[in-house]
Amino acid sequence: MRAIDLRSDTVTKPTPEMRRAMYEAEVGDDVYGEDPTINRLEERAAELLGKEAALFVPSGTMGNQVAVLTHTRRGQEVIVEAESHVYLYEVGGIAALSSCQVKTIPGVRGAMDPAAVEAAIRADNVHFPRTGLVCVENTHNRSGGCVLPPENVAAVAAVAHRHGIPVHMDGARIFNAAVALGRPAAELVAPVDSVMFCLSKGLAAPVGSLLVGSREFIAEARRYRKLLGGGMRQAGVLAAAGLVALEMMIDRLADDHANARRLAEGIAGIPGLRVDLETVQTNMVVVEIVDERWTAGAFVQALRTQGVLCNDTGPRSVRLVTHKDVTAADVELALDAIARTVKAGP
Amino acid sequence: MRAIDLRSDTVTKPTPEMRRAMYEAEVGDDVYGEDPTINRLEERAAELLGKEAALFVPSGTMGNQVAVLTHTRRGQEVIVEAESHVYLYEVGGIAALSSCQVKTIPGVRGAMDPAAVEAAIRADNVHFPRTGLVCVENTHNRSGGCVLPPENVAAVAAVAHRHGIPVHMDGARIFNAAVALGRPAAELVAPVDSVMFCLSKGLAAPVGSLLVGSREFIAEARRYRKLLGGGMRQAGVLAAAGLVALEMMIDRLADDHANARRLAEGIAGIPGLRVDLETVQTNMVVVEIVDERWTAGAFVQALRTQGVLCNDTGPRSVRLVTHKDVTAADVELALDAIARTVKAGP
Amino acid sequence: MRAIDLRSDTVTKPTPEMRRAMYEAEVGDDVYGEDPTINRLEERAAELLGKEAALFVPSGTMGNQVAVLTHTRRGQEVIVEAESHVYLYEVGGIAALSSCQVKTIPGVRGAMDPAAVEAAIRADNVHFPRTGLVCVENTHNRSGGCVLPPENVAAVAAVAHRHGIPVHMDGARIFNAAVALGRPAAELVAPVDSVMFCLSKGLAAPVGSLLVGSREFIAEARRYRKLLGGGMRQAGVLAAAGLVALEMMIDRLADDHANARRLAEGIAGIPGLRVDLETVQTNMVVVEIVDERWTAGAFVQALRTQGVLCNDTGPRSVRLVTHKDVTAADVELALDAIARTVKAGP
Amino acid sequence: MRAIDLRSDTVTKPTPEMRRAMYEAEVGDDVYGEDPTINRLEERAAELLGKEAALFVPSGTMGNQVAVLTHTRRGQEVIVEAESHVYLYEVGGIAALSSCQVKTIPGVRGAMDPAAVEAAIRADNVHFPRTGLVCVENTHNRSGGCVLPPENVAAVAAVAHRHGIPVHMDGARIFNAAVALGRPAAELVAPVDSVMFCLSKGLAAPVGSLLVGSREFIAEARRYRKLLGGGMRQAGVLAAAGLVALEMMIDRLADDHANARRLAEGIAGIPGLRVDLETVQTNMVVVEIVDERWTAGAFVQALRTQGVLCNDTGPRSVRLVTHKDVTAADVELALDAIARTVKAGP
Repeated sequence: MRAIDLRSDTVTKPTPEMRRAMYEAEVGDDVYGEDPTINRLEERAAELLGKEAALFVPSGTMGNQVAVLTHTRRGQEVIVEAESHVYLYEVGGIAALSSCQVKTIPGVRGAMDPAAVEAAIRADNVHFPRTGLVCVENTHNRSGGCVLPPENVAAVAAVAHRHGIPVHMDGARIFNAAVALGRPAAELVAPVDSVMFCLSKGLAAPVGSLLVGSREFIAEARRYRKLLGGGMRQAGVLAAAGLVALEMMIDRLADDHANARRLAEGIAGIPGLRVDLETVQTNMVVVEIVDERWTAGAFVQALRTQGVLCNDTGPRSVRLVTHKDVTAADVELALDAIARTVKAGP
Repeated sequence: MRAIDLRSDTVTKPTPEMRRAMYEAEVGDDVYGEDPTINRLEERAAELLGKEAALFVPSGTMGNQVAVLTHTRRGQEVIVEAESHVYLYEVGGIAALSSCQVKTIPGVRGAMDPAAVEAAIRADNVHFPRTGLVCVENTHNRSGGCVLPPENVAAVAAVAHRHGIPVHMDGARIFNAAVALGRPAAELVAPVDSVMFCLSKGLAAPVGSLLVGSREFIAEARRYRKLLGGGMRQAGVLAAAGLVALEMMIDRLADDHANARRLAEGIAGIPGLRVDLETVQTNMVVVEIVDERWTAGAFVQALRTQGVLCNDTGPRSVRLVTHKDVTAADVELALDAIARTVKAGP
Repeated sequence: MRAIDLRSDTVTKPTPEMRRAMYEAEVGDDVYGEDPTINRLEERAAELLGKEAALFVPSGTMGNQVAVLTHTRRGQEVIVEAESHVYLYEVGGIAALSSCQVKTIPGVRGAMDPAAVEAAIRADNVHFPRTGLVCVENTHNRSGGCVLPPENVAAVAAVAHRHGIPVHMDGARIFNAAVALGRPAAELVAPVDSVMFCLSKGLAAPVGSLLVGSREFIAEARRYRKLLGGGMRQAGVLAAAGLVALEMMIDRLADDHANARRLAEGIAGIPGLRVDLETVQTNMVVVEIVDERWTAGAFVQALRTQGVLCNDTGPRSVRLVTHKDVTAADVELALDAIARTVKAGP
Repeated sequence: MRAIDLRSDTVTKPTPEMRRAMYEAEVGDDVYGEDPTINRLEERAAELLGKEAALFVPSGTMGNQVAVLTHTRRGQEVIVEAESHVYLYEVGGIAALSSCQVKTIPGVRGAMDPAAVEAAIRADNVHFPRTGLVCVENTHNRSGGCVLPPENVAAVAAVAHRHGIPVHMDGARIFNAAVALGRPAAELVAPVDSVMFCLSKGLAAPVGSLLVGSREFIAEARRYRKLLGGGMRQAGVLAAAGLVALEMMIDRLADDHANARRLAEGIAGIPGLRVDLETVQTNMVVVEIVDERWTAGAFVQALRTQGVLCNDTGPRSVRLVTHKDVTAADVELALDAIARTVKAGP
């Protein structure tokens, strides 16, 4: 039995077109700036996001951490949403790599109150670190893939900029946001100074992310990429798949969103489970397990034996993610398995 | 007119006995371990706190930061109360010096829920920093000098120790806690692995703090003190004042507490101001300004012209601190000035 | 005219077999440990180097820096050869990432005197950082690809281990050393605790390096790889090429060495240039320009117009590197161009 | 028997005038900038050194490390003389605190060749850290207190400034240099951007050093001092002694120099010992032990039993330092003890 893998969109396999593109890729030494496929991908990424320049990095984590390194100076403070990836899931990199302290602000579905951001900006006082950066995340993973309201991004960025502070967006899934809103990604990221987005999640490329921003920012980011060991050689083999991803895989994210919606509505009808349908805006579904016989960990294990893979994200919550290797039929099969499992009990 | 300085107990001037002790101090080169007065002070501090060893440092900030450096490894996470001094007022040192990330937990009058501490300890996962330290603060400055309930300290420490994580106490004002509870300081710090306390606040010595802990911990801390530039030479001149502080200044903290209580009760009766009397447990009074004509900043300025100095700690809150250079008569004068000022309006 | 690219072996293009392997690669999400091709490559690498475990990283720089992070604690000192890559060409990562100070020891063709290493190990003193790691480099890039004498590696490692200090080898080109000596790589790295080697230089894979060591070391290194952003998703596409490299590309390094030798001997006969033939042990030739009309920079520019690419490595020195995309015929053409150019003058 | 302590000028005890000044010192809370004695000392120090502003710090190490933090950004490279204090004896602080890599240049009696400094400045290349600071040390401790030739300081600073790089001087003993040359200290430090000098060595104050530089530099340095825990409260008690030191103790350094000269000449006549008299320029004498029966460690121990204290600074070298608590008569006694000891053998 083939497993239905709803753990993350990071598990997507490359498409045949991507494999072919990798096979035929024209390559060079990217540390010398001579890989033509990397260069094309970086140009295309910058264009798509409406920024001057872009930099290919091997992971979203590296993209975010290079952005923090580039924007900040040692000893500053970085304002982050309290459940953001850059704070929770990047091995403490803001402190470990940039030597910056985090100031967390709890958001609503990932959106921070601009007034709270302003209140968190440090006054000029010898006891305080200086506030060096504000980070936002769109879509917001921990809230179940919610889309940041564009006016919220604009308001947070306006506050930061008024204080001379740059804004970075972890846009690992920015194209999910763009597809959900029916607006170009460039529009969504216009208020921020830099964005990282991933080729390797819903877009299904095997490896890689891009950091985009001003020409000057990217030139400096290139040094920090080298510092972290992200300078690769004939990386055009990866970029070739990335170009296919940007050309062929963005629009189809709508299918993943439809599948997630169907999944969420199905689960909402299963006794013992609860889904906040308003948070199902893109390709994720966060399920609260109200049936007290189950813990999230036990439920995930039980589903696994039924061929459905997912991750627990808290003692009573489970996350399901749709992507190009999950079909509408898979969703129905998964719903059956979930209903059966919860009913049967542990 | 002599100002009544209620900004902080850090403004206390050395007593005549301290000046005499400094004048007569027997000194040596403490980097060689040869300053007899420093050695006596370190022994006395360890004894008073019931730990094996102690280290003299030029400030409370250095004591806390040396503790964090000594307990942790680069890239770990440190659990701190969300309004704690080590996080808010030490220039981001946890990240800047130790390269560790903070995880903040909002406390109630400084006391963190042990269950919240346990939930914040990171699981073993490649995405996560390891939790390396838990910090507590007693008394808790930002809540107005509240005393941590001893059973809370014990419970938080028990959680941390069950996970193999050490606990540091910022006990800058631990003797205020001890006097308020009528229990020996050693008892209050028994559950934690290290404590920093200050000679230069309510105890009125001109300069210095002590870090106490196990012999092995202090030996390692000594290296980190040297790294931060805290290795001083004939520091016995300061230690001499510190020994006087430990001998003569602890019991009299009760006077400061009585003065703070009188001040708080007086303010509670002034229309336009509010004080939560339950938080007035030691030598601080946090006043909420409800009279909408005033901002905290304007009120502080206005009081200054009346010869009363204090600090604003938020847009509508002001903090008053009693200490050995504020008499009971000063408290009455301050109350008059405060009542007059708030009534007059800006 | 096709350029003869002697700048570095990093410019090698993937072979048709590598492209096919990438096309067909079985992949999974390596952050979950589920990429079967990565797993095979890591097992094969550990086996080839005679260590317990291995970790795939996107670059040699990341492999070295992860090793330094894993072996050391913040604030220690790392002994490095004065012309080593980890010190000179990795953007100051030892300090920037690991917060460790370097202690440089000038080597002879890369080999440090074990007595000098011992003298550099810090005594136990509160003024000193502790020595946390010794790094060696084999082959040694800056000396022109010289092979470290195996007895030197053993002696340096013995000194370090006697003091309880681990040893890391930057073995970016360890297989060049193995082929040059006619001994298995595992034998050459037996005395050291960890080794990094590259798939992307002489072995011609497009991207990637491996860090090998004990199982415990690699488990910890995996966390640091994640911190630096080296955790990739379907990285099996790269590993597939890497497996081809290990199978098909090691033995043929002998051809590169023969070409370098022919190139060096030819250059040694050109008036105005000088080569120390004893240093031509693998695939590099360092040329000293004695003709005073030329600077290294001008000479490199002039050769470029003749279709020969190389790098200057000092004001009067130029480095030529042979690799699988340089044939014996290319070497003759390059020699002609070099002779013509130097004679013609700038 | 009173020991004659030639280990270091850091062992000097405060004078009666200093003790009296401390006793009477007018103090305030220096974190609020309200300690009048600290303010007077900082003004006086800036004036003496011919710079705009000054900052009191508890140690020379803190002064140097605050300077490095203030001048540099994370990940840069700092050029230091290979035997300098800031590199060898400050616990690796350049890396541990500033996250900067050191580039060491061997000097001649502490003086670096300006051409070597220029060659060490990093080119603009993605592989390289940027050079962020050059440090010089005057007098130079490890060479035996040699004075940097003023034209050397000027030349090194000119090279650095031509590349836009600031220069910091570790002038722990700058007044020894000034007295030795018969020139004002301000003249000697004119070419550099910042200077640290100590009150607690030859000038005999119990604790403290000053960092001087431009007003903007010192304002930023104040934040870094707070970060390291160097913000003290009623530090005027220390500053009072420092003011005495600046007023009364500079000119008398000439006596220490005369004593060191007499000591060196005496030792030069003792068989089995050797002194390079040209290096005896201030208050230090480095003795090479040529009598093969002795190691430096054993010799130091043997002298200790004779009431003469000194430190070994290498396997065959011993350092003797004169200061205000060593009289001309003490020098004669020490010479007798040294002659007797070396002759007797171990």
